[in-house]
Amino acid sequence: MTIHQASARAHTNIALIKYWGKKDQQLILPMNGSLSLTLDHFYTDTTVVFDSSLKADQFWLDDQRQSATKISRFLDLVRQRSEQKTFAKVKSYNHVPNAAGLASSASAFAALALAASQAAGLNLSRQALSRLARRGSGSATRSIYGGFAEWLPGTTDKDSYAIPLQEKVDWDIEMIAVIINRQQKKISSRQGMERVVETSPYYPAWVKSTQADLLKAKKAIQAHDLILLGELAESNALRMHALNLSARPPFSYFEPQSLVAMRLVEKLRTRGICCYYTLDAGPNVKVLCAHKDSQIIKETLQSVFAPDQLIEAFPGPGVQLINEK
Amino acid sequence: MTIHQASARAHTNIALIKYWGKKDQQLILPMNGSLSLTLDHFYTDTTVVFDSSLKADQFWLDDQRQSATKISRFLDLVRQRSEQKTFAKVKSYNHVPNAAGLASSASAFAALALAASQAAGLNLSRQALSRLARRGSGSATRSIYGGFAEWLPGTTDKDSYAIPLQEKVDWDIEMIAVIINRQQKKISSRQGMERVVETSPYYPAWVKSTQADLLKAKKAIQAHDLILLGELAESNALRMHALNLSARPPFSYFEPQSLVAMRLVEKLRTRGICCYYTLDAGPNVKVLCAHKDSQIIKETLQSVFAPDQLIEAFPGPGVQLINEK
Repeated sequence: MTIHQASARAHTNIALIKYWGKKDQQLILPMNGSLSLTLDHFYTDTTVVFDSSLKADQFWLDDQRQSATKISRFLDLVRQRSEQKTFAKVKSYNHVPNAAGLASSASAFAALALAASQAAGLNLSRQALSRLARRGSGSATRSIYGGFAEWLPGTTDKDSYAIPLQEKVDWDIEMIAVIINRQQKKISSRQGMERVVETSPYYPAWVKSTQADLLKAKKAIQAHDLILLGELAESNALRMHALNLSARPPFSYFEPQSLVAMRLVEKLRTRGICCYYTLDAGPNVKVLCAHKDSQIIKETLQSVFAPDQLIEAFPGPGVQLINEK
Repeated sequence: MTIHQASARAHTNIALIKYWGKKDQQLILPMNGSLSLTLDHFYTDTTVVFDSSLKADQFWLDDQRQSATKISRFLDLVRQRSEQKTFAKVKSYNHVPNAAGLASSASAFAALALAASQAAGLNLSRQALSRLARRGSGSATRSIYGGFAEWLPGTTDKDSYAIPLQEKVDWDIEMIAVIINRQQKKISSRQGMERVVETSPYYPAWVKSTQADLLKAKKAIQAHDLILLGELAESNALRMHALNLSARPPFSYFEPQSLVAMRLVEKLRTRGICCYYTLDAGPNVKVLCAHKDSQIIKETLQSVFAPDQLIEAFPGPGVQLINEK
């Protein structure tokens, strides 16, 4: 019996310029580039143990046994590259408030990519890790890096990966997550983006305008311009959600309470407070702001939301090996 | 002193295939064709008195004196055509639940077009009336006709008018208006559509896809196919609201309670009840359904909304002269 193991930690990221739609379902190649901020507060710790005595892959999430189907498909990629056939035991802990509806697949597959590749004896570059993580979940591509990262869409498996834009964020920026619904969403990201690509007449204009947004957002980050970055992020998010409304049949991730949070953020801006929202494939609203304003923003949100629905997060680090079980 | 007067009644209409964006601000020529259902429950009665002793136009709405600026501009068109310079007294009564946020400009300008042209001694055809009403408010173009009407977008003042599609609606169809907010909206239709035309990257695709929707909706009306008509209306409305989200800066007429009503309608459909929603430039939701199902739909909506927030309306007639003060 041979045993090889490794543990890794990766943080979630929230896209400010969104990924919505694939040009290759198998390789997970996106239609357009995207840009995200990795957050410190939400992360996944994953340990992979390749064990020659196993008859199949095993997967535990937060100490609960889960189906290993998706994990196995991902581990197959690692096994191919390391030229071995050993099965693995995968144990993950999601340090995300319980089922908070915050994309945990980004941190999950970024952590799995590093832990599995290390345990298999591969010593991948961050670029190669980013490409590997991409095969598990598109947004995981960006969680390899801390701070601001850009996912280059590419045209093949080889050139679709993330690059760091500003790993150490040295300006006053944070996000407040407004947790509105902890339930499983009715339409998965995968289904949603597929329907949009197939049926929305707005889709080609989305790809084009998002490419333009991305260039502007990179300049805003270089210039530490929170107003410009916020305006771009909010508008880009709404253009993504507009795609869902324009699909056939239409769908939406907005819930009434999402609109309540969005309107509160807009109202704060009329009072001169710099804050902008973004939403992903779910009802939760994330508010981009400066830390110096977070107290007043939280107080305003607390006129409607309970304190435990509001979670403050700061720029977080990239994926790293850790010493764990 | 010479006096010439006439009174007319016109009903509001709700667009099932929407008008959103002008290609000529002055003439109010729309970018795309649209299709509506005129409703019996909501109407405007207007009396126009041309009186040679008047020094300026006067306007009363529901017995309250109002600014006559917009009315005067409209009356100028009538004066030009009838070659006279007499001012007029205009009295309107809006038979719409008080400030219900249901487009009353459609019924207002359709009634004014008929009353003013008759009082001025013009005997306009319905096509000419429709062209005239258009100059007051785009949606008034369609309120000349009862039942289902189509507004042909045209390219000049001469060929942009509505035509009747099915004036006497002989199948089981109605609308339930869900009154969510009676306040003045922050962004007028005019401002909203201007911003969309100027800034939304999705706009050209809207025009094209709406033209296709219009053809399908006409076939659905011919076939008395409520499911197809409802699906088209709901999807077309959401594509219009998607334009607003995609404008820069983005905006929305949705309020949290609008989403509540929309989700209730979607839920009713999963129970096999045929109903579809549409929204105009405001938060109120209008539910298209068959009268045979209206009781169960109202009961479901009443789980959240008060009975006086729900108003049932049936297909209504076109503009007509009436005998009134």
